[in-house]
Amino acid sequence: MRILGIDPGSLVTGYGVVERRGADVHHVAHGTLRQPRTAPLATRLAAIHAGVAEIVRIHRPDLVVVEQVFVAANVRAALVLGQARGVALAAVAAAGLLVDELSPQEVKRAVAGSGAAQKQQVQRMVQRLLGLAVAPAEDAADALAAALCRAHRSALLTLPGAGPGRGGRRSGTRPRAGRFVLRSAR
Amino acid sequence: MRILGIDPGSLVTGYGVVERRGADVHHVAHGTLRQPRTAPLATRLAAIHAGVAEIVRIHRPDLVVVEQVFVAANVRAALVLGQARGVALAAVAAAGLLVDELSPQEVKRAVAGSGAAQKQQVQRMVQRLLGLAVAPAEDAADALAAALCRAHRSALLTLPGAGPGRGGRRSGTRPRAGRFVLRSAR
Repeated sequence: MRILGIDPGSLVTGYGVVERRGADVHHVAHGTLRQPRTAPLATRLAAIHAGVAEIVRIHRPDLVVVEQVFVAANVRAALVLGQARGVALAAVAAAGLLVDELSPQEVKRAVAGSGAAQKQQVQRMVQRLLGLAVAPAEDAADALAAALCRAHRSALLTLPGAGPGRGGRRSGTRPRAGRFVLRSAR
Repeated sequence: MRILGIDPGSLVTGYGVVERRGADVHHVAHGTLRQPRTAPLATRLAAIHAGVAEIVRIHRPDLVVVEQVFVAANVRAALVLGQARGVALAAVAAAGLLVDELSPQEVKRAVAGSGAAQKQQVQRMVQRLLGLAVAPAEDAADALAAALCRAHRSALLTLPGAGPGRGGRRSGTRPRAGRFVLRSAR
């Protein structure tokens, strides 16, 4: 099962693709779509739509996941975020794919052991869990984290190095780089 | 010059097309794209994107106009509105068209003579100004009002029956139904 995580933003949209094979989760790809600040709003949104459609076409995920948004700094920020989020969701649905929404706390807890984990912690844990040579950019790390979280939603995750988050269990042995181990949920 | 106005919403998106020929503005089309509440969010957004793209393809406007959003009831409402607005803007830009943004006050003042006009006033004035047999639905009326406002942005509008809004001037004679008269801006 291949899962695409998307972290939409008006200037930077992060994405990450992971593949679950049995109990392992492997890194497939990640990156960011960056829009020039100087471009008109509608042009930037069209580029996000086209970019997400392209990512879906290239990586052919079985499922797409985005983080729920409950809070934003203010009404203006919510509107700006909503616009980027809307086009990302529309591009995914236009490809006939389902979108799953996860709470940010759930995602952070799954990869970093705590729902209150900082951005850098998420970056470091995503890097470690997927055996990446360098830490992904913030937005790509968030997208990968969402994909990882979804990959083991119905399974019990063995997290090397992560704190004992709800539903998580520490493994005695550290999984190979490039994958992490899942155990079936009880 | 053909102008498409769009009033995006997560459940109802209104649209209205007018054409300016010399000093006259004629009604071309209007309507609403309605999304079922029960459909998943991403599916609704994809339908709005596809619907706006279809309207652009059918009516081939030279310019598209949407209302600016400064305020929303709350962060949640801003996010929901932003999502619908984002896909509408993206669909327009993907067709290579420019999007103009007008303030709601500017639009209301242009068609109803006051920036604080109520929805029903806007509906009635749009109906009268464009000589429509029945008043358009709220969202379509707002979209038509934005298109009308844009049509005479660089002209001085002669509004039959509307109050003396800023930049507006009452005409002694009432224009024929189905158009309204523009005067060149000084």
